[in-house]
Amino acid sequence: MLATLIHAERDIRVETVPDPVLSTGVDAIVKVVAACVCGSDLWPYRGITPTREPHRIGHEFVGVVEEIGPDVANVAVGDFVIAPFYVCDNTCANCRNGVSTSCLGGGWWGGNDKTGAFADAGQGERVRVPLADGTLVVVPGPVPDELVPGLLTLSDVMGTGHHAAVSAGVGEGDTVAVVGDGAVGLCAIIAAKRLGASTIIAMSRHPERQALARAFGATHIVEERGDEGVARVRELTGGIGADQVLECVGTKESMDQAIRSTRPGGMVGYVGVPNGGPELPVRPLFDRNVGVNGGVAPVRGYIEELLPDVLSGAIEPGRVFDLELPLAEAAEAYAAMDERRAIKVLLRP
Amino acid sequence: MLATLIHAERDIRVETVPDPVLSTGVDAIVKVVAACVCGSDLWPYRGITPTREPHRIGHEFVGVVEEIGPDVANVAVGDFVIAPFYVCDNTCANCRNGVSTSCLGGGWWGGNDKTGAFADAGQGERVRVPLADGTLVVVPGPVPDELVPGLLTLSDVMGTGHHAAVSAGVGEGDTVAVVGDGAVGLCAIIAAKRLGASTIIAMSRHPERQALARAFGATHIVEERGDEGVARVRELTGGIGADQVLECVGTKESMDQAIRSTRPGGMVGYVGVPNGGPELPVRPLFDRNVGVNGGVAPVRGYIEELLPDVLSGAIEPGRVFDLELPLAEAAEAYAAMDERRAIKVLLRP
Repeated sequence: MLATLIHAERDIRVETVPDPVLSTGVDAIVKVVAACVCGSDLWPYRGITPTREPHRIGHEFVGVVEEIGPDVANVAVGDFVIAPFYVCDNTCANCRNGVSTSCLGGGWWGGNDKTGAFADAGQGERVRVPLADGTLVVVPGPVPDELVPGLLTLSDVMGTGHHAAVSAGVGEGDTVAVVGDGAVGLCAIIAAKRLGASTIIAMSRHPERQALARAFGATHIVEERGDEGVARVRELTGGIGADQVLECVGTKESMDQAIRSTRPGGMVGYVGVPNGGPELPVRPLFDRNVGVNGGVAPVRGYIEELLPDVLSGAIEPGRVFDLELPLAEAAEAYAAMDERRAIKVLLRP
Repeated sequence: MLATLIHAERDIRVETVPDPVLSTGVDAIVKVVAACVCGSDLWPYRGITPTREPHRIGHEFVGVVEEIGPDVANVAVGDFVIAPFYVCDNTCANCRNGVSTSCLGGGWWGGNDKTGAFADAGQGERVRVPLADGTLVVVPGPVPDELVPGLLTLSDVMGTGHHAAVSAGVGEGDTVAVVGDGAVGLCAIIAAKRLGASTIIAMSRHPERQALARAFGATHIVEERGDEGVARVRELTGGIGADQVLECVGTKESMDQAIRSTRPGGMVGYVGVPNGGPELPVRPLFDRNVGVNGGVAPVRGYIEELLPDVLSGAIEPGRVFDLELPLAEAAEAYAAMDERRAIKVLLRP
């Protein structure tokens, strides 16, 4: 079968690899219906995080179960399933606390775990899914093809945007600013609106992303960055800043923008993978009682909550995909996202 | 009248200063019944924050109103009042949002505001209180002398410990660890218990403070620090860490201890004044979804909530005072706290 591997910086190859086989009683084999490229896949692509040896890549996919181990109880052959961007048992103490990204038995797709348990990844024709009962969520009924992109966002970006909003405590009538107009930032706008925010300020300089931001619920667009961006947000918020700011980028600059755009007593919800490990300046947080909450989004726990709204069309996160390519062209998908020619690229095996 | 001034590092003097006079229609003059020395007063005392010129010091006091400006409506001559550790109008957007420490018209006792509006401070015989209607809270009825220490803690340490617990989201049945066994840390134990925590781990090496911690509600004491302290907290919490950790010190080491003792998805509530501005390591926060919330505690807004429990004796934060001295001996009060001979010193004019 075909699968995508990263060999080194800017070296993405679709190669023939062995078909996956069940290796434990709790595995499942999923035939991928759609996968995609994540903003965080660009860190190794750009060489910002090193690639020490070639490995499978891609952590977002939906598909149909082809085979299950004898101890799998929650999914059946033929089920259409959503996989979160990590593997979890959904039963350990951390999973029960809603933090399945810290699952005591889980791992990361394409991970460098010595046992190889998590070596498969999403950008391929098939995936061996460990801990299938905990990891996979079944979508009920026949799945119309036009819903596939929206369902695929539940693997990562929609749940991640939702996590930013939940972590920041967005609620009815709140004023929210969103830093980042990538797929996660756009999904954070959907999430903020869904949770009741009445004013949503999207920080974006790109006309087509601004249009999508407005379609998703943004009430204001701020094009400025740095001091001017902060000043514009304050101007729109009675001089004090937003109740919550959702940081969906992960750089020092974006986090600084987020912290300074938050009102005293407000909260930054952050989900942008910290790029280069910027530290948080404690004094400006302390002096203004601005909190910082979030992290690697435990999207597994959000799928059931968000799924009905995707199925009903109440939210349309699938619109973040503005390019679709066959799996064989995965390298071009990375290039298109890297060059910001595409917001997010869907891959069809 | 007598008042305490700091002249330089380790140079605290009680001097004769002019009696305060009303300078605006919204001022009040308060005759101080009791004041005290704060852990944060030790930063300038130790020279960690510089003292550029001599100024009044002390930001915690209770007293009786002697005089009011013509526009003061909420307090009357003869009222027993509690002053928070800062001045606020209690009406601006930030005050309404519960963050009166960011009051748009407020300031800090003994502050270096050019107008001199906030120049008075608590460790003296009398204080001119600006924005008296917003700043002062009246204690109803006659105040028995034995309640004075408890009421005085509502100026700062009890409200600050409460803020740590509130910021961290402590609730019914939670497991809470408290870093810091000073007056604020001890009050944070009271607050955590009051908010329903069922397990409270106090990190303390001092037998007399451990005893007070237990009296206030601590169920476990951890004497270890650093890696061993983290390991002990995890051992007591099913291997994962505490739901909330209350950081009541303000050093890099204490914040590190707090972050690492928090379970995935948990929250650090921090109120220790950052000493030297340590930065927060974003990666360990992000990877484990540990949030950080808190800051300079808006205690003004907590006084009404906590006051009934102090008056009824349901909580006894006044027990943090283990030394009482006349105002004239303020320098000795600083020395006793600096050398950790006393947890907290009450000063009587």
